[in-house]
Amino acid sequence: MVPRYSRPAMTAIWTPEARLRIWFEIEAHATQALADLGVVPASAAQALWDWWRTEPAIDVEAIDAIEAVTKHDVIAFLTWVAEQVGDEARFMHQGMTSSDVLDTTLAVQLARAADILLADLDALLAVLERRAMEHKYTPTIGRSHGIHAEPVTFGLKLAQAHAEFARNHERLVHARADIATCAISGAVGTFANIDPRVEAHVAEKMELAVEPVSTQVIPRDRHAMFFATLGVIASSIERLATEVRHLQRTEVLEAEEYFSPGQKGSSAMPHKRNPVLTENLTGLARMVRGYVTPALENVALWHERDISHSSVERYVGPDATITLDFALARLTGVMDKLVIYPERMQKNLDRMGGLVHSQRVLLALTQAGVSREDAYRLVQRNAMKVWESDGRLSLLDLLKADPDVTAALPPAEIEARFDLGYHFKHVDTIFARVFGS
Amino acid sequence: MVPRYSRPAMTAIWTPEARLRIWFEIEAHATQALADLGVVPASAAQALWDWWRTEPAIDVEAIDAIEAVTKHDVIAFLTWVAEQVGDEARFMHQGMTSSDVLDTTLAVQLARAADILLADLDALLAVLERRAMEHKYTPTIGRSHGIHAEPVTFGLKLAQAHAEFARNHERLVHARADIATCAISGAVGTFANIDPRVEAHVAEKMELAVEPVSTQVIPRDRHAMFFATLGVIASSIERLATEVRHLQRTEVLEAEEYFSPGQKGSSAMPHKRNPVLTENLTGLARMVRGYVTPALENVALWHERDISHSSVERYVGPDATITLDFALARLTGVMDKLVIYPERMQKNLDRMGGLVHSQRVLLALTQAGVSREDAYRLVQRNAMKVWESDGRLSLLDLLKADPDVTAALPPAEIEARFDLGYHFKHVDTIFARVFGS
Amino acid sequence: MVPRYSRPAMTAIWTPEARLRIWFEIEAHATQALADLGVVPASAAQALWDWWRTEPAIDVEAIDAIEAVTKHDVIAFLTWVAEQVGDEARFMHQGMTSSDVLDTTLAVQLARAADILLADLDALLAVLERRAMEHKYTPTIGRSHGIHAEPVTFGLKLAQAHAEFARNHERLVHARADIATCAISGAVGTFANIDPRVEAHVAEKMELAVEPVSTQVIPRDRHAMFFATLGVIASSIERLATEVRHLQRTEVLEAEEYFSPGQKGSSAMPHKRNPVLTENLTGLARMVRGYVTPALENVALWHERDISHSSVERYVGPDATITLDFALARLTGVMDKLVIYPERMQKNLDRMGGLVHSQRVLLALTQAGVSREDAYRLVQRNAMKVWESDGRLSLLDLLKADPDVTAALPPAEIEARFDLGYHFKHVDTIFARVFGS
Amino acid sequence: MVPRYSRPAMTAIWTPEARLRIWFEIEAHATQALADLGVVPASAAQALWDWWRTEPAIDVEAIDAIEAVTKHDVIAFLTWVAEQVGDEARFMHQGMTSSDVLDTTLAVQLARAADILLADLDALLAVLERRAMEHKYTPTIGRSHGIHAEPVTFGLKLAQAHAEFARNHERLVHARADIATCAISGAVGTFANIDPRVEAHVAEKMELAVEPVSTQVIPRDRHAMFFATLGVIASSIERLATEVRHLQRTEVLEAEEYFSPGQKGSSAMPHKRNPVLTENLTGLARMVRGYVTPALENVALWHERDISHSSVERYVGPDATITLDFALARLTGVMDKLVIYPERMQKNLDRMGGLVHSQRVLLALTQAGVSREDAYRLVQRNAMKVWESDGRLSLLDLLKADPDVTAALPPAEIEARFDLGYHFKHVDTIFARVFGS
Repeated sequence: MVPRYSRPAMTAIWTPEARLRIWFEIEAHATQALADLGVVPASAAQALWDWWRTEPAIDVEAIDAIEAVTKHDVIAFLTWVAEQVGDEARFMHQGMTSSDVLDTTLAVQLARAADILLADLDALLAVLERRAMEHKYTPTIGRSHGIHAEPVTFGLKLAQAHAEFARNHERLVHARADIATCAISGAVGTFANIDPRVEAHVAEKMELAVEPVSTQVIPRDRHAMFFATLGVIASSIERLATEVRHLQRTEVLEAEEYFSPGQKGSSAMPHKRNPVLTENLTGLARMVRGYVTPALENVALWHERDISHSSVERYVGPDATITLDFALARLTGVMDKLVIYPERMQKNLDRMGGLVHSQRVLLALTQAGVSREDAYRLVQRNAMKVWESDGRLSLLDLLKADPDVTAALPPAEIEARFDLGYHFKHVDTIFARVFGS
Repeated sequence: MVPRYSRPAMTAIWTPEARLRIWFEIEAHATQALADLGVVPASAAQALWDWWRTEPAIDVEAIDAIEAVTKHDVIAFLTWVAEQVGDEARFMHQGMTSSDVLDTTLAVQLARAADILLADLDALLAVLERRAMEHKYTPTIGRSHGIHAEPVTFGLKLAQAHAEFARNHERLVHARADIATCAISGAVGTFANIDPRVEAHVAEKMELAVEPVSTQVIPRDRHAMFFATLGVIASSIERLATEVRHLQRTEVLEAEEYFSPGQKGSSAMPHKRNPVLTENLTGLARMVRGYVTPALENVALWHERDISHSSVERYVGPDATITLDFALARLTGVMDKLVIYPERMQKNLDRMGGLVHSQRVLLALTQAGVSREDAYRLVQRNAMKVWESDGRLSLLDLLKADPDVTAALPPAEIEARFDLGYHFKHVDTIFARVFGS
Repeated sequence: MVPRYSRPAMTAIWTPEARLRIWFEIEAHATQALADLGVVPASAAQALWDWWRTEPAIDVEAIDAIEAVTKHDVIAFLTWVAEQVGDEARFMHQGMTSSDVLDTTLAVQLARAADILLADLDALLAVLERRAMEHKYTPTIGRSHGIHAEPVTFGLKLAQAHAEFARNHERLVHARADIATCAISGAVGTFANIDPRVEAHVAEKMELAVEPVSTQVIPRDRHAMFFATLGVIASSIERLATEVRHLQRTEVLEAEEYFSPGQKGSSAMPHKRNPVLTENLTGLARMVRGYVTPALENVALWHERDISHSSVERYVGPDATITLDFALARLTGVMDKLVIYPERMQKNLDRMGGLVHSQRVLLALTQAGVSREDAYRLVQRNAMKVWESDGRLSLLDLLKADPDVTAALPPAEIEARFDLGYHFKHVDTIFARVFGS
Repeated sequence: MVPRYSRPAMTAIWTPEARLRIWFEIEAHATQALADLGVVPASAAQALWDWWRTEPAIDVEAIDAIEAVTKHDVIAFLTWVAEQVGDEARFMHQGMTSSDVLDTTLAVQLARAADILLADLDALLAVLERRAMEHKYTPTIGRSHGIHAEPVTFGLKLAQAHAEFARNHERLVHARADIATCAISGAVGTFANIDPRVEAHVAEKMELAVEPVSTQVIPRDRHAMFFATLGVIASSIERLATEVRHLQRTEVLEAEEYFSPGQKGSSAMPHKRNPVLTENLTGLARMVRGYVTPALENVALWHERDISHSSVERYVGPDATITLDFALARLTGVMDKLVIYPERMQKNLDRMGGLVHSQRVLLALTQAGVSREDAYRLVQRNAMKVWESDGRLSLLDLLKADPDVTAALPPAEIEARFDLGYHFKHVDTIFARVFGS
C-alpha cells in the first residue's frame, strides 16, 4: 500500500483493528448459533454480546504480544477476548478451525471493499453522464489510428466511457457475489465438529452467502475472479486516462486536466500544463493488472489447502482494492473538472480544410450524373490542394470556385454536403441506448 | 495453435473459410436490411441469398490472391463475392466500414467458441458428478499443507471440484454475453451512413445483442473480460490436475490416470506410470493464463480505435479457446477413467495409526471426568509411540491396553471415538448443496 | 504461430524436420563418443555418419506413424533411423534418456533462434545509426508528458533508441549463453549409465556448454531468463513503435511510415495514412511479453522433473522467437524507410511562438541588471500574449517591440537567446557516447 | 510493503529519509562539480558539505509541509536545505531538472538493494554448499513425475539448487549494472544548461556509470530488466520451496522445516508439522513475479518521458526488493536448519523392493547368455510380485530364490546389481563442476 495512493474509507477496511472486529463478530455470531443449538450455554453468547455493546477498543498491541508467545494469531485473539469477557468466553470457537474465521473475514473485507468500489463507479458514472449531456452535440474529430477520420461529438466519447464503466459496474456486482461467502465447516470442511446451521446463522448475520462446499478454506477461484475483474476495470481506467492524455497534447489541446492557479507547471512557459493525473492513472492501472496473475496462481492449492495463498492476499487484498479505489476517485475528479475546449475541437476539425466531407461530395456528384471517374478526379484535384496547404485552404471554397464542379452541383448543394449535422443525426439514438430515454 | 493440443470442432471456428462464411452472412443480412429500408434494391439481397443457398465453397486462395493486389482483406472478399454473384453484389457493404464486419465476426466466433467451452464444462460436470456419487462415502485422508489432517471422502473432493466448475460455467455464461454483441455503425460509430436498424437486423439474425455504443470497433473491455474468465477456468483445471498428480505419487498412489496396457512406461518397472496428462494440463493452464494480460493491455486503444488489438487477437482468439477446449476435454477424460484405489486410501488413512482420532479421545476422557491435564498426558504418551512407530502401532490398540485410560473409558467407548462415520455425517448435506437434493 | 507474423529462417528452426535433424546429430555424436570410449563398436558411429553424409531426407510422416504405435517420440525416431541405417544403429542412444536428446535439442534451437535475433538487432542498430547520423542536427521539439518542453534533435531520439537496442543486444548475448547448454546425463542426471565424457563431446560438437548439473532435464530457470529477456526487447520495440505512432498523428505529423503509392488508405482523403505497422508492433510486443509469465511458472518443476514445462514450450518456443524476429524485422523496415518531415518539426517547434526560449531571456534580463521580479513580469506579459494567440504571434517579435525589454537588452541580444544551437552544443558528445567517436 | 515480510536493512533503503539523504548527496556533488567548473562559487559547495558533516537529521515532516504549499517535492527539499545551510545553498540544482535527482536516486536505491540481494544469495549459496557436502552421498530416490525413478543423493539435489542460485547471482550482477547509471542531463537530456562533466563527477562519487543518453529520464528498459531478473530469482525460490514441501508430505517425510518445540502444530497429533515457511515462500514468489509485467509495461513512455512509470515504481521498487530479500533470507534459514531424515530416504528408496535395479539385472542376465526375451520374462515375473506386495517383498530376495535366475547368474552376481554405488560413481565429478575441485 502506497499512502499517497490511498483513501481513508478503503484503507480502514484493511487495518488490524477492523480485521479483529470482524473476527469477533463472526465468533460471537457462531457462539450464538451454538447456544441456540444447545451446544454451549446461552450465557456464553450473552456474555460476548454484552461486552461488545460496551463498544470496547481492540487492543491490537496486546494481542500481538500474546501472539508472540503462542505463535498463533487466532488463539492470541481468543485469549485476549477471554481476558476481557471472562470465563464464559471459553465456549467461543468450539468446533471451528482458524480458517473458518480467517476466510470468512476476508470475504467480509472484500465485500465491503467491493461496496466502496461500486460506489466509486456510481460516482464516476454520474460525472460521465453529466459531462456527456453537456457535450452531447459538441463536434470533434473522430480519430482512428491517431489520424483524423470523421466527425463525432465529445458527448459520444463520454457516452462510450459511460457504457464501459456501466459494464464494469455489472461485472463487479458479479465478482462481489463470487467472494461474499461464509464457511464455518471445521478442519477439512466436513462439519465433523460443528453443525452446518452455525454456518447458516453466521452467513446471514454477516450478509454473506453460505459456501456450498469448502475444504477448510473457501476455494480461491472466487478470489481469482474478483481480482481479475479489478484488472479489467483498471484497464478501462487506463483507456479513458489515455484519451485525456492524448487530448491534452500540445498539438491537440482539446481538453485539459483542471489546474488550480497555484499548480502552474512553469511560470514562464504558460503552456506547460502536464496531464500528470491521467499519467498517474496509467501507472496505477498497470499495478492493479499486475495483481491478477498472482491471484490466478493462488487457485491451485494442494489437496484440502496449503497456505501459499495467504502471503499473496496480504499484498493484493489491500493493494488492489485501495489502489483501484484511489484511481476511480481520481478519474472521477479528472472527468468532473476536465477543462474542455470546443473551439479548439472545431479548429482541429477544420484543420483538414473540410477533407472529411470529400466522400459525400463525391457521391453527390455521381448522383448528379457525373461519371464516377470524373467525379473522383474533380474531388481529388481539389482535395490534394487542401492537403498540401496543411489546412490553410478550404475544400468547400475550392469546390465552389471550380467551374467543373459547380457545373454539376450548385454551390448550395455543395455546401449541404459540408453539414456536420449529417453525422450527428443518430446521436440521440445512441444516447438513449446508453443513458435510457 | 499447437495441433496436438487442439480438437476439430473448436479449430473449425478459426479457419479462414469459417471466418469468411460469417463475413458473408453478416454482409447478406445487412444488405437484406438495407433492402427492407429501401436503400438498396430488394434484388440485391435476393441475389446474395440465392447464391448462398447453392452452398458455394469459399475459395480462400482466390480471395488471398485478390488481397495481394488490393492490400485490403474485406475489399478482396467483396470483390470475390461480386465475381460469383454478379452485378447485384455491388450493393453489399453500403455505408459499412470493415470493422463492422470484422468485429461482429469475432463476436460470432467467440460466442461459438464459448458454446463449445460451455458444453465441455457440462461434460466435465457430468463426469465429476458421476464419480462423486460413486465415491460419496469412500474414506480418504484430508490433507492440509500436504500433511494428514482429518478424514474426508473422495466424493467430497470431487463435489468440491464440481462446485468450482459449476461456478466457472456461470462465469463463462456472463463472459459469453459480454462478447456476443453486434456493431454495424460505420466509420466512427455514428451511423452517419447507415441506419441503426441494419445493426438491429444483423444482430438478431446472428444471435447477438446490439452494441449500445461503438467507435468503429466494439470496445475491448468485453474481450478482456472474456479472456480473463478463461484464465480463471484454466486455473481451476490446474487445481484439479495438481490434485491428481499428488494422488498418483509413488508414496500416495490413491488414484492414477488410466493407462492402456500398451502405454506402460517401463517394462521392467511396473510402477513407472506417470501422470503425464495432468502434468500436461498444468502447462496448458499456464498458457491460457498467459493470454490474460495481453487481452487486458488491448483495452486502452487510442481515441476511436487503433489496430494494435488485432495482432494480439490473431494469437489469443484461437490459442486461448482451442487450448482451453482441449484441456477441458482432456481433464474430463482423466476424471472419467481415473483409476481410484479405495484400499490404498484406507491404508494411508491408517498410516498414522489412528492419530487422527486422538482429539475425540481427549474430549471423551475429559467428559468422563479426567482432568484436562491428565487426559492430555494419557493421550499424548500413547500418541507419541504410534508416531515413532511410523504407523506400525495402532493408537486404538495402545489406548485399550493402557489401564489408566480404560479406568476412565471402557474399551467400547474408546472404539466409538475411532468411528469414521462421525466425520461423514454431513456428507449428505454437502452433496445436496452441490448436486441438489 | 501466426503465419502472417513469421519469417522463413526462424520458422525453419521449429519445423519437425529441423528438430529431428538435430536429434540425429546429437545421437550420432553421442555414439561417436561411446565408440571412442570403447563402449560401442566404432562401426556403429561410422554407419550413422556414413548414412548422414548421403544427406537423407527425414520422413516425418513415417516417424509419426511409428509413434502412433509406440506412443514414444524418441523411440519412434530411433526405430526409423535403424530402418534406414541397418543393424549398426542398435548401439545408438545407449545409456541415454529421452530428455538428453529433447533438452539438448531445445538448447540448439533456442541458440539458433538467438543468433537470428542477434542478427535482427544488428540490422536494426545499423538502420538506427544511419538515420541518427542523417538527422543528427534536425531540430525537433522535445516533449515531456506529451507537452512541448525544450528542443532536441531527431538524431538524439534515434540515438536513444540505438542505445536501448544495443543494451538489448548485450542482454540477449547473456540470455543465449544461459540456454545454450548440453545435458547427456541419463535418467536422473547421475551419469549412472553414461560417461560424462559423452556429454562433453556432444556439447563441443553442438557448440554448447556442458550443463554442470542436470536432473534428467536442463533446469528451467535458464529458459525463464531467456524468455524474460525477449519480453524486455519486445517492450523496447513497443517504445519505439509508440514514438512513431505519436509522430504520425494528424496534428503532429513529423514522421510517417512509408506508404507505397498503391497502399493509400483512402482515395479521396489524402491524409488517411495510418501507422498500421507500428500499431501492429505494439500488439506483437504484448504477445511476446505475455509469454514471460508462463516461462517463469515453468521453473518450479517437481523433484527431478515433471513434464508440465513441455506443453508451455511447444507454444512459447516457436511463438516468442518467431514473433520477436518478425517484429524486429518489421521495426527495422519501418525505421529504414521512415519518412521524416524536418519542416513540420520546425513548424511544431515554432508553434509556441518561441516560448521555449523564455527562460533564457529571463536569465539574460537578470544578468543585464533587471530585478528578477521585473524580468519575470516583462517576459510573462509577452509570453501570455503568444500563448493566447495559439502560435500566431512570436515571442521574439513581441519582445523586440517591447520598449521596457529593449531598454535592458538590445534586440541582437534578445535574438541570441533564441538560438537553437545553444541546445545542441552537446549533441556531439552524446553521439560519441552512443556510436563511438 | 507488508511489514511481516520485510527486513530492516532493505526497508531502510526505501524510507523517505534515506531517499532525501541520497538527494542531498547528488545535489552536493553536482554543486561541487559546478564549482570546479567555475559555474558557481566554490563556497557554495563548501557550505553544503560543511553542513552535511554536522550529520544533520533530515526533517521529513518539515519538507512535507513545504511540499504541501509548493506542490513540488524537489523544490520543497531544496527550500528546506536552503533554510538549514543559508544563502550559499541557492546555487544548488543549477541547470538540473528534478528527474536528474529522482532517477539517479532510484539508481542508487536499486543498486544498494541489489547489493543486499547479492549478499542474500551469497548466504544462501554458503548454506546450500554446506548441506550439500553433508549429504553428498546420502542416498535418496530420484523422482520424475512424482514417481520413483532411479537413485540420486540428497547432496545432488542441493548441488542442483546451488548451481541455480549461482546462476541467479550472476544474473543479478548483470541486472545491477543495468540500473546503476547516473543521469544529470537537464530538461530533455541535451545538457543545454549543464555540463556533462557534472554528470561524470556525480556518477563517480555515487559509484554509478554515466547514462550515455537520457531524455530527462533514465530509460526504463533498464528497470524492466532488473525486475524481470528478480522474477527469475523468485521462481527459483519457488522451485526449492516446492521441493521441501514435497519432502515434508506425510507419506514422504524425507525432510522437514525445523520446528522449535513451542511451535508444534497440534498437541495431540505429533505429525502435524506443516511446511508453512516454504508455502509462504511459494506465495511470495508469486508476488515478485507479479511485479515483472508492470515493470515491462513501464518501458514505453511517451516521447522524452511521461510520468506513468513513477506510480508503478513507488510500489514495485520497495515491494519487489523487500519481498525478495525477505524470501531469500527465509529460504536460507529453512535450508540451514532443514531436518533431513536419511533413514526415511532409505526406507522410501526400498519401498519399491529393489525394482529400481531391475534393469541392471536384465542386462546382466543377457550378458550371461540368457536370451533377451527369457531374461525379460524372468525379471518381470519377480518384479510383478514385488510391485503387488506394495514394497513388502524384495526383488533381490525373490531373484535369489528363483532357480531359473540363479542358474544363469549366481546370487553374488545378482547382489552386485543392487549396488547403489553404481549410481553414485560420478557424484564427485558433478560436485567438482558445481563447487570447484
